[in-house]
Amino acid sequence: MKTNSEPKTGGLAGVNAGQTAICSVGKEHDSLTYRGYSIDELVAFADFEEVAYLLIYGELPNKKQLQNFQAEFIQGQRIPDHVRKLLEQLPASSKTMDVLRTSCSVLGSFEPETSKHSQVQIATRLMPYLASCLFYWYFFAVKLQVKEVISNQPTLAGHILYLLKGKAATSEEIQSLKSSLILYAEHEFNASTFAARVCVSTGTDFYSPITAAIATLGGPLHGGANEAALRLIQSFSDPDEAEKGVLQMLAEKKLIMGFGHRVYTTSDPRSKFVKQIANLDRSEAGVHYFAIAERIEQVMGREKKLFTNLDFYSSLVYNSFDFAVEMFTPLFVFARVAGWSAHIMEQRANNKLIRPDAEYIGPALRKYVPLEARK
Amino acid sequence: MKTNSEPKTGGLAGVNAGQTAICSVGKEHDSLTYRGYSIDELVAFADFEEVAYLLIYGELPNKKQLQNFQAEFIQGQRIPDHVRKLLEQLPASSKTMDVLRTSCSVLGSFEPETSKHSQVQIATRLMPYLASCLFYWYFFAVKLQVKEVISNQPTLAGHILYLLKGKAATSEEIQSLKSSLILYAEHEFNASTFAARVCVSTGTDFYSPITAAIATLGGPLHGGANEAALRLIQSFSDPDEAEKGVLQMLAEKKLIMGFGHRVYTTSDPRSKFVKQIANLDRSEAGVHYFAIAERIEQVMGREKKLFTNLDFYSSLVYNSFDFAVEMFTPLFVFARVAGWSAHIMEQRANNKLIRPDAEYIGPALRKYVPLEARK
Repeated sequence: MKTNSEPKTGGLAGVNAGQTAICSVGKEHDSLTYRGYSIDELVAFADFEEVAYLLIYGELPNKKQLQNFQAEFIQGQRIPDHVRKLLEQLPASSKTMDVLRTSCSVLGSFEPETSKHSQVQIATRLMPYLASCLFYWYFFAVKLQVKEVISNQPTLAGHILYLLKGKAATSEEIQSLKSSLILYAEHEFNASTFAARVCVSTGTDFYSPITAAIATLGGPLHGGANEAALRLIQSFSDPDEAEKGVLQMLAEKKLIMGFGHRVYTTSDPRSKFVKQIANLDRSEAGVHYFAIAERIEQVMGREKKLFTNLDFYSSLVYNSFDFAVEMFTPLFVFARVAGWSAHIMEQRANNKLIRPDAEYIGPALRKYVPLEARK
Repeated sequence: MKTNSEPKTGGLAGVNAGQTAICSVGKEHDSLTYRGYSIDELVAFADFEEVAYLLIYGELPNKKQLQNFQAEFIQGQRIPDHVRKLLEQLPASSKTMDVLRTSCSVLGSFEPETSKHSQVQIATRLMPYLASCLFYWYFFAVKLQVKEVISNQPTLAGHILYLLKGKAATSEEIQSLKSSLILYAEHEFNASTFAARVCVSTGTDFYSPITAAIATLGGPLHGGANEAALRLIQSFSDPDEAEKGVLQMLAEKKLIMGFGHRVYTTSDPRSKFVKQIANLDRSEAGVHYFAIAERIEQVMGREKKLFTNLDFYSSLVYNSFDFAVEMFTPLFVFARVAGWSAHIMEQRANNKLIRPDAEYIGPALRKYVPLEARK
């Protein structure tokens, strides 16, 4: 997610790159809808799995459909033996996003897309599978433990928290995490989704665009922003120091991660929810970081008229769960697989190769000089 | 590479997505230049390594620079032990492009980009490394042989042919293959390059956009076209049958791979070179396939006013070397790493997040219906 304000020129800003029926962003007063449903209602009433189903299939599931989806979801928690061995080769120094990129790429070799293993099945499989792979690798390589990755939890939030803690989470914990996952599930033609659409527009299999999307989400101007936001908040020891530090950064024209958005103009409609969830953490550390975060928010509003985006307070939500900061962007991935998958299917259903033009600004035609004559 | 004619609407066709100094495509009578040099001269006079250097560094190398580049190139042929073990886990049924996608992704865990392991080093490393990985996996999984992958050949063509044959190739063979590699090295904002630029625009490491590009190149509307072209040519037993078959396919509105181009209007400036090289193969099979290919070319010109693109006769060139058809698109990858790398560096040097808008055509705002009330 891009932060801070910028003119809408270059980088295809403001350029219509295609049609979508999945998500409307900022159409009315910085609103956000998935398939016509306001995220306000989805966060308040729906489970993540209903939202994932909605994105992938276009409609909310009935009871039977949701049950089947969740059964498939539990099936999807397993890691094939060869993938497990392969994950064991990856060094402890690997970046978590690199592990996910590889985990997605290799599954294409073991469970290729076929008429019997269809795109909707792969989409459903990848959400729990990627979480299983990351935590398996993390515990194996970093903590030197072999982790059981089949949680039998029927929800993504429950599965992730089980993998983190080694036991079932409370329903309050699952509620908090699922709200964040719903907010991260989809966001129109953001960079990773657009990369996925460019990729699949050449007619690739399903794993290719998801791998490309994971590769793209890792950048600090996109998914990496939630990690950067926590590091910023934690770099200050109290609100006054934060105020001074942020003013200093602004004077040095440094980018403050977690603020502003390419598409929204006055606020990020997702931000209020994560701020509210972050404020539920009444632990000493939770209260401490929240106070620092609020002060940074005030300073940015006052000095730059910039609002917090989803990533800013999400970082405190994830921190309150004791996720290592390296797990923040992967949490974004697990959820966004739903949105990416919906876009891949939409691109396929009415495909046109995505191949723009470029403006050439290089050297004019010049004569080849043989190697011997070069200085 | 997209084939057949299509209106220039949608898929960002004709939309300027940014500036580039690397390559001009179709500016004057369907010409093609790399950094201002006509590909006619580069194919005639340059080695692939000079061209790769030119693309990456912006200028042709002098003798010393070329020597250093080739020394680095030979160093880059090695596969780390853990990557070797990891490749041994991949099944023989893997698609070659999936193996390359994974090979690129995992190297990011072992040789991450740092200030000491810079983007130009990674770019140079990836060309021989990817070839080594693919042939190592291919011989291990498919042929059940453990392959030595360090050829000590100072050229990409020489390295690839050594890996294929297990011995050094003749200089004529190396010349033929290097011409094809030069032609495949770069092509402006094609889909895989554009995917790489979208990816790196979020601030990722270097392996991410190359992984995304490999993922994108695999599609039949892009790099996969050379494989499809050979399969088409080989599906006919003689020119007359080819004529009948192609007419039939056209009547059924089937896509004929290897014809037409999104950017070129009257011819693909690369096509004449590969046709010429394909015609050097005077073996019985070579002459036979060439005759069929020429007839398909005539029919497409007569019936659809479409010209062959790079992929069409390249397929015969690669076939004449006894590359398995599954190796054709990977050969494209090994060469195109040079162009992708140049674009990644160019995007980084003047970065702006690539994030277009979309036109929303989905359902209007609708009220959430609780699970119990859904039919």
